[in-house]
Amino acid sequence: MSRDPDDLAELTKTAPELNNPETEEDLEDLALGEDYALNPDYVPMVADALDRGDAERLRELLSALRPEDVADLMGFLSAADREELLPHLDPETLGDVLAELDWEIRDDILEHVPSATLAKALEEMDSDDAADVVDDLEEDKRAQVLAAMPEVERAAIETTLSYEEDSAGRLMQREVVAAPQFWTVGQTIDHLRRESEELPELFFDVYVVDPAYKPVGACPVSHLLRTKRDTPLAQIMEQVTEIPVDMDQEEVAYIFNKYNLISAPVVEPGGRLVGQITVDDIVGVIQEETEEDILALAGVTDAGRDARLPEIIRSRLPWLVINLITESVAVTVISPFQQMVAQFVALIMLMPIVSSLGGNAGTQALTVAVRAIASRELSPANALRVIMREIAVGLLNGAAMGSLLGIGSYFLWHNARLGLVVALAVLANFFVAALGGIIAPIILDRTGRDPAVSSSIVVTFMTDFFGFLALLGIAALILL
Amino acid sequence: MSRDPDDLAELTKTAPELNNPETEEDLEDLALGEDYALNPDYVPMVADALDRGDAERLRELLSALRPEDVADLMGFLSAADREELLPHLDPETLGDVLAELDWEIRDDILEHVPSATLAKALEEMDSDDAADVVDDLEEDKRAQVLAAMPEVERAAIETTLSYEEDSAGRLMQREVVAAPQFWTVGQTIDHLRRESEELPELFFDVYVVDPAYKPVGACPVSHLLRTKRDTPLAQIMEQVTEIPVDMDQEEVAYIFNKYNLISAPVVEPGGRLVGQITVDDIVGVIQEETEEDILALAGVTDAGRDARLPEIIRSRLPWLVINLITESVAVTVISPFQQMVAQFVALIMLMPIVSSLGGNAGTQALTVAVRAIASRELSPANALRVIMREIAVGLLNGAAMGSLLGIGSYFLWHNARLGLVVALAVLANFFVAALGGIIAPIILDRTGRDPAVSSSIVVTFMTDFFGFLALLGIAALILL
Repeated sequence: MSRDPDDLAELTKTAPELNNPETEEDLEDLALGEDYALNPDYVPMVADALDRGDAERLRELLSALRPEDVADLMGFLSAADREELLPHLDPETLGDVLAELDWEIRDDILEHVPSATLAKALEEMDSDDAADVVDDLEEDKRAQVLAAMPEVERAAIETTLSYEEDSAGRLMQREVVAAPQFWTVGQTIDHLRRESEELPELFFDVYVVDPAYKPVGACPVSHLLRTKRDTPLAQIMEQVTEIPVDMDQEEVAYIFNKYNLISAPVVEPGGRLVGQITVDDIVGVIQEETEEDILALAGVTDAGRDARLPEIIRSRLPWLVINLITESVAVTVISPFQQMVAQFVALIMLMPIVSSLGGNAGTQALTVAVRAIASRELSPANALRVIMREIAVGLLNGAAMGSLLGIGSYFLWHNARLGLVVALAVLANFFVAALGGIIAPIILDRTGRDPAVSSSIVVTFMTDFFGFLALLGIAALILL
Repeated sequence: MSRDPDDLAELTKTAPELNNPETEEDLEDLALGEDYALNPDYVPMVADALDRGDAERLRELLSALRPEDVADLMGFLSAADREELLPHLDPETLGDVLAELDWEIRDDILEHVPSATLAKALEEMDSDDAADVVDDLEEDKRAQVLAAMPEVERAAIETTLSYEEDSAGRLMQREVVAAPQFWTVGQTIDHLRRESEELPELFFDVYVVDPAYKPVGACPVSHLLRTKRDTPLAQIMEQVTEIPVDMDQEEVAYIFNKYNLISAPVVEPGGRLVGQITVDDIVGVIQEETEEDILALAGVTDAGRDARLPEIIRSRLPWLVINLITESVAVTVISPFQQMVAQFVALIMLMPIVSSLGGNAGTQALTVAVRAIASRELSPANALRVIMREIAVGLLNGAAMGSLLGIGSYFLWHNARLGLVVALAVLANFFVAALGGIIAPIILDRTGRDPAVSSSIVVTFMTDFFGFLALLGIAALILL
């Protein structure tokens, strides 16, 4: 089909015109940039319509947006404007918007949506997204909302919530399409047409199951479409990658990424099919997990785009306090050398340089290690090789930077021994940086902790402490 | 179907036994962990079989692995072992392995695969993956390999390579399924069965096109399967999100993530359909782009898991040299105060603490900003609000940390004026850190540069320079 578009062109008719094509298209062009990001100018237009209470204009403005764009818009509106916008969304849109919103904006909004409206919105959502919202509700409201929902949807949400947070069970939707392996392609399609109402909104694989409802294979829907009706499923099914219901979402994301999966069946401990995870949920998880790593390496947690001051401060102060403590301990090493430093004042200027260079070298090594551990590229199979390589890199970079700084110091202070002191101190500190940068994350990972969270505390402390110690200790030996 | 598994269980037959279930299953259990990561113990088993030249054992060991696992295995084998493994892979597996390999291991392997074998492997691959491989080949070999390929596949690869690197054109596969909008579901399915050979291996949407071959809608295949045969496509098609062929892959990933897309049509400037991008390609892009940000923030580039020393050093030394230069400039601010420092030796120990705290506060602010910019949460619509908030956070955290350090200094050195000096210096440096941490990435982004790459150079320089200046300047005013 794709090969000869011109034939097709002759066959095809023109698209039916939209009711009011000009205005709508204009608004759509205005709403979203080339890259489908919300146009910053659109935000004040909506805020203005809200302020004037112009419901008609608001309807127009919103009709140019998909639910994901409305969620995006909410992120840029003030809390008051957001609250006013809510009554203008129908339950289905509200459900779609809730599924896309950042958690802290969602929390804020959930307080202002009446329980009955919320119950209707939840009915329209996939069970995993709906459970996520219900989980965020306060106890009273949660009971009200659940009571207002039909039995089946309520049960689905309650089951999902019975699984641990960040587990495959939370991520999965309970709605799956399964078929016994003796069915033919034709029987399967007929069944799907008959049961159309009961099926998930979108699905990508039909899981082939055995009598115990264990998945034994998967048929991509595109294979069903292209295969003759009398072909048995067992003949076209492919190998299936099962996800245990209690697996952590980070591992699930790794598996999806590794095998380029579009969907995968989730199974109970006995192997029975209980749901499926689709790749669009995984894209969110991958984004979330790598962003967590970025933030953890810098010693912050995500307080959210719309967080209030106390929340942001709470997300940053602990790391700063830890930094104050470790740095205070590190500088104690200077104490016995104070008189020498007062005598050789050049050391005052060299100390920050030596510790900063070491800190950077250590951060480089540890960031590479954290990334490699997260993507399973660093394992016991190659750990020793990687450690040896990092040490070699540390020594070579240390020699290079030490020489540079040593020569510079020599020319600046006309003191060859000072140059030598500095060069040796940098070399020694780079060795410590390399060791700490590669070994700290490996040890943290093996002991089951997140290497992104605490590695940089350890490494910064090491390079500051040893940086000062190396510079001042070697100076005491050579200069005094 | 999903609702009542027990009925189904009764209908279903048992799976046919595998030829040699015990050994194969055992090996599979041995090969992969619970989380489908390659078991470290499996690597020496393969290396051992390679050393002994035991082709039979090797065949067994490899048969327990999918191509993605073989790619994983390659990453842990030595270069010599990898080279020996190559002849044991058939062209189809080789193609799948090449599509999954890290680039630097792939480069290494490509040198050792004969052109004829490579041509066969490329034929088995999707056009986007094949083009990627061809792009990596040296000129001579590229000509040889292309000459050995059939006309159609060669043309597809050459067209793909005509698009810019990291653009949608490179990411897309040219194979798409399109249908005119007056077709019914039944006509479409019949067409797919007839043309089965010509279709992409997997597809998730049938694009509905107008006479100019412009996409006007998309039908998810699961909708085709569940809908009655006589329904016209125009009736069930959904809104389509077009990707311009020259769009950068980072923007494509943003769009897929925002709208939870599974596949999207790629169009030429005129709007004509030329290919499609599927979400499995996007998962790789998202991983790649966030990893680039993590590494850039730490001042390294990815030299690859198997990089040789010179490559690693080249990926780290530039940043260290820049750090040496900026840090050397920053410490010049100490120079006029050297005599005062020699007099008040406590300042020697306080200097690193003040600059380190400021550096950390700045890194926190800039990391949050870089993440917000990357996920389009920070735009001109809310930039001013975010900047004001960061300054408030900086002043509050600065006041808190300044008080802590000031009180500590007072008790340690019994000098209230020294305590005041330190507290004010920390506060001033946190203000600078907040300003630099939020404004540097915004300016870099607006001027079209990657905020992750150079923000931390700027911010570290600022907090070191102003940290020293604030501490020593205020000390000169208050202590002398």
